[in-house]
Amino acid sequence: MSNCSKTSCQTSCSTCMSADKKLESFIKELDVETSHHRVESQSIKCKFGLDGVCCRLCSNGPCRITPKAKRGICGADADTIVARNFLRAVAAGSGCYIHVIENTALNLKKMAENKEPLKGLKALDRVSNILGITDGDQFEKAYKIADSILKDLYKPRYDKMELVEKLAYAPRFEKWRELGILPGGAKSEVFDGIVKTSTNLSSDPIDMYMSSLRLGISTGLYGLTLVNLLNDIMLGDPVIRQASVGMKVINPDYINIMTTGHQHSLIAHLQDYLISSEATKLANSVGAKGFRIIGCTCVGQDLQVRGEHYNEVFVGHAGNNYTSEAVLATGGIDLITSEFNCTLPGIEPIAEKFDIKMICLDNVAKKANAESVVYSYEEKEEITNKIVNEAIKSYSKRRGSIELNIPKDHGHDDVLTGLSESNLKEFLGGNWKALVDLIAKGRIKGIACIVGCSNLTAKGHDVFTVELAEALIKKDILILSAGCSSGGLENVGLMSAKAATKAGDSLRKVCEELNIPPVLNFGPCLAIGRLEMIAAELAEYLNIDIPQLPLILSAPQWLEEQALADGVFGLTLGLPLHLALPPFVGGSELALNLFSEGLKEITGGQLIIDGDVDNTANKLEEIIEERRKGLGL
Amino acid sequence: MSNCSKTSCQTSCSTCMSADKKLESFIKELDVETSHHRVESQSIKCKFGLDGVCCRLCSNGPCRITPKAKRGICGADADTIVARNFLRAVAAGSGCYIHVIENTALNLKKMAENKEPLKGLKALDRVSNILGITDGDQFEKAYKIADSILKDLYKPRYDKMELVEKLAYAPRFEKWRELGILPGGAKSEVFDGIVKTSTNLSSDPIDMYMSSLRLGISTGLYGLTLVNLLNDIMLGDPVIRQASVGMKVINPDYINIMTTGHQHSLIAHLQDYLISSEATKLANSVGAKGFRIIGCTCVGQDLQVRGEHYNEVFVGHAGNNYTSEAVLATGGIDLITSEFNCTLPGIEPIAEKFDIKMICLDNVAKKANAESVVYSYEEKEEITNKIVNEAIKSYSKRRGSIELNIPKDHGHDDVLTGLSESNLKEFLGGNWKALVDLIAKGRIKGIACIVGCSNLTAKGHDVFTVELAEALIKKDILILSAGCSSGGLENVGLMSAKAATKAGDSLRKVCEELNIPPVLNFGPCLAIGRLEMIAAELAEYLNIDIPQLPLILSAPQWLEEQALADGVFGLTLGLPLHLALPPFVGGSELALNLFSEGLKEITGGQLIIDGDVDNTANKLEEIIEERRKGLGL
Repeated sequence: MSNCSKTSCQTSCSTCMSADKKLESFIKELDVETSHHRVESQSIKCKFGLDGVCCRLCSNGPCRITPKAKRGICGADADTIVARNFLRAVAAGSGCYIHVIENTALNLKKMAENKEPLKGLKALDRVSNILGITDGDQFEKAYKIADSILKDLYKPRYDKMELVEKLAYAPRFEKWRELGILPGGAKSEVFDGIVKTSTNLSSDPIDMYMSSLRLGISTGLYGLTLVNLLNDIMLGDPVIRQASVGMKVINPDYINIMTTGHQHSLIAHLQDYLISSEATKLANSVGAKGFRIIGCTCVGQDLQVRGEHYNEVFVGHAGNNYTSEAVLATGGIDLITSEFNCTLPGIEPIAEKFDIKMICLDNVAKKANAESVVYSYEEKEEITNKIVNEAIKSYSKRRGSIELNIPKDHGHDDVLTGLSESNLKEFLGGNWKALVDLIAKGRIKGIACIVGCSNLTAKGHDVFTVELAEALIKKDILILSAGCSSGGLENVGLMSAKAATKAGDSLRKVCEELNIPPVLNFGPCLAIGRLEMIAAELAEYLNIDIPQLPLILSAPQWLEEQALADGVFGLTLGLPLHLALPPFVGGSELALNLFSEGLKEITGGQLIIDGDVDNTANKLEEIIEERRKGLGL
Repeated sequence: MSNCSKTSCQTSCSTCMSADKKLESFIKELDVETSHHRVESQSIKCKFGLDGVCCRLCSNGPCRITPKAKRGICGADADTIVARNFLRAVAAGSGCYIHVIENTALNLKKMAENKEPLKGLKALDRVSNILGITDGDQFEKAYKIADSILKDLYKPRYDKMELVEKLAYAPRFEKWRELGILPGGAKSEVFDGIVKTSTNLSSDPIDMYMSSLRLGISTGLYGLTLVNLLNDIMLGDPVIRQASVGMKVINPDYINIMTTGHQHSLIAHLQDYLISSEATKLANSVGAKGFRIIGCTCVGQDLQVRGEHYNEVFVGHAGNNYTSEAVLATGGIDLITSEFNCTLPGIEPIAEKFDIKMICLDNVAKKANAESVVYSYEEKEEITNKIVNEAIKSYSKRRGSIELNIPKDHGHDDVLTGLSESNLKEFLGGNWKALVDLIAKGRIKGIACIVGCSNLTAKGHDVFTVELAEALIKKDILILSAGCSSGGLENVGLMSAKAATKAGDSLRKVCEELNIPPVLNFGPCLAIGRLEMIAAELAEYLNIDIPQLPLILSAPQWLEEQALADGVFGLTLGLPLHLALPPFVGGSELALNLFSEGLKEITGGQLIIDGDVDNTANKLEEIIEERRKGLGL
């Protein structure tokens, strides 16, 4: 079997390797080009770009740092160029998450103004308590929550955001205050990060890395943590349940709408409507049994974790970002709604070939051949009607003429999903004692949060993620996952209870007693915020700071700028963070030293860049062992 | 003489060519490395980067488009990648200008709140009239102006900015409304431009170019136009006068503070203090005759155009961005205040070698070896004291030990400066009739606005700019200039009245009658806004739309991301815009066609990319001739 990691991709392989063998075979047989096919044609990588030492900020460039040319024309050296590129990527990635919390908070505000029923009243109470909102009925509380978030987001950079202290674990907040990295208005932090990195502005690498940390905090607390909590209020708390995943969930008897993106609340109205008998009648009128939503990418994961609330219409998560092209190529999808990132440009020609209507609901994510139908709360009914009508038109037009090729053996029906920081604690008896005891007794050695994206270059599609997960559970390390990584892990079966057999003896017994898999699914990348809430709650329960926990973070197959912003949040929390591919910083000694060692003295965090699975697993185990020792375990 | 354009740089040349021969010789003799030296070591350019077809938004990358690999791994093709890179650069550039108007408006707001005397009451009336602010005394008016700008900047993107209609020429506003490119809150437009261009978000090139146009409008009206007008209110209107320029203005008998950046109001308090007898006494106490401010980059140009108001302390503009390293290497500078871009990283080692204290007044522009003293209105007295004390310390410490090498023959004493849209009209008799008559009679063939930066790669430092200016004035085309380009043009003498002899016979006579040079200096790049106000006023006077004017725009040696945002504003105004170097779009047929032809049908604008001076001059003349014909001239 060929292997498409950058160094070993063979010319004989037409697609890259996937951890998901059924997907790999399916893609190999397709007569459309997918991302998996293009790995080979893009296998020659620019070393300057990989090392982050290429600069094209000005018309004197591009400049590239070499041993003979240690500075660009303007005088910027490798450390400056790398830092500038890194901060710009983190700022852009933060911007993406902040865009999501802005839209989410706006939707909650409008729901509250219109006294629309809120599905998660427990979550409402919880968030109200966190933010210190005590007066008013549910709508007044929801309004105040949303409004206080929006006000924070729009503050100028010189005004600190007010909710940070309420959301952060107290020892961390103190640390950040000490370091002077408490963020001002989140949108202005992004704005200033971009300005800083423009031509001939900042050239102090340390200052730029401190800005990155500041962006990490606003990203983490608002873009990760709060988005989940607001979605819980609007869309209902996640419920732990068994679910189906993979391409098998596509049933051609239905009009199938595939979702991509990250903003569940933008399709909530559509989802509610599709459950109605009116919608079913409309579908029946063109010969379909009804409508179905097929989850894809992170919005699909969010649908999946909350699936208990609308299982009539949501049938399962088909796959992650780099599964989306294959899902379309089954021919079973009639319409795609996309509203944010992880919507690959590569789906455009496939949608065209398979005559699939594409609708973009957010104007920051317009696909070339899609129709733009920008979501607004006020127009949600018209928008739902539009999508439903277009889906019916598309179904009628394409079915019969488009060949279907749905691999019904791809996926699983016994995936444990729907975990959240709240319901995991409930499941464990209402507090963290049970989990802490398992760790203290050594039955669970520690916790690894394997999160983030899927890419095609760290050994192939989900290959590093899956191999690392397998290596860590063998070491009795429990895995929590969120993001496209979880899409990969569930499609290979690691989130099914029977995967306990793949764990080390000790963890296996724990899993079997609790009837859980050794890899727990928290859903979309946004839910990395949930994992970090768990870390904070565990630390609080133990009365220690987060860096003392036997808990590590790995985003082995990080892909996007957003992942870098996420990752930096982890570093501000003082967590060890592993990446299999370096974030374009290899050309700067300063960056490498700062991330691997210097940060330990600053936030307590550290970055581990390692492209070898066994090495990584051993290093992460070692850190967990050290932390256990530190706690006297 | 060697020539450092990218294609012809010879290994025998140690520094690149400059249009400013005295500067070129001076730099050649230096034993420090400057940007001019580094052109050679960075002469091998990456074709993928130049063409804009390199993408490093994700960990699968960098991907590069080639004839064999027409898409990146994600599926993005050359058109998408080029558009994404372009929009991101325009958004970042816009962000820079919006940062400047934000700080400027904040300063005006604080001045108004504190009833601090405003130096430009005529400008206050003018701006109040434009914005429809009729009630209140000068402070209330100033407060309302500043506040309405800040409110617009902080609007979300879905709320249109309110001042756009008031600031824009009416036929243009209608055109923009028709096109759907009226901008929402300027900071959110930047934010969304960045989000759009992040990994796997937008992939529709047309949508991204329309976003760029929207950013052009907010940049132009707020970042260019309004900044000048607010500075006029706070710092005093420009006054037409003769001034000195070049390194000759450095007098070693004084404590010399060099400025770099774009935000004049951040050093206004310092400037006022330095005129005081107290400051002079302090300087005297360490053996200096007093304090002097040496202008450099655009903030220096802004000092120069308003020089009439503080000629006791401001002695002239030494040079543009790529002159700054040489200015420091004279040894005559004791302290640098920098507050924004065009502050080259290359000044860091030179400041170190010459023991020059560096203070950064804005935290978006921190130099590695500088002290950060972030300006705020509230702390301006402490900040002024800090700068003065540090300058005195530096002067005492370094003078005597540092060798001085000031080329007293570099520069001119007879440069006409201080022009603005207001005082040019006054100079011409209170309206545009005189200028229109000169054009109508053919005594002036048309107007070329040569603006923007200086770079080192379009034939060398200021070489293209100066050669193009010379070619155009020979064709009887009057030149208005703003930006670092004007720094180059004045240092080679083209802004001295005697340069009339270099113009064509007809323009020469006009210049001699009016005692003006054929190239008129409006100061910093911000003043591109002034030129565009002139264009709008001329169009209004003639009752035509801007694209009908015999007026063209050229930013021949554009350098920075800001220049691209400026340039796009010109395109939204419907102006022909020339660039000698392409803005990294050469790899996209769609982009090349859109910019050169398609835009004519959209905004009326067009982009002319031409690296040959004579070709360019002929093309621009042709456009002017066409426009003259269109007007029946």
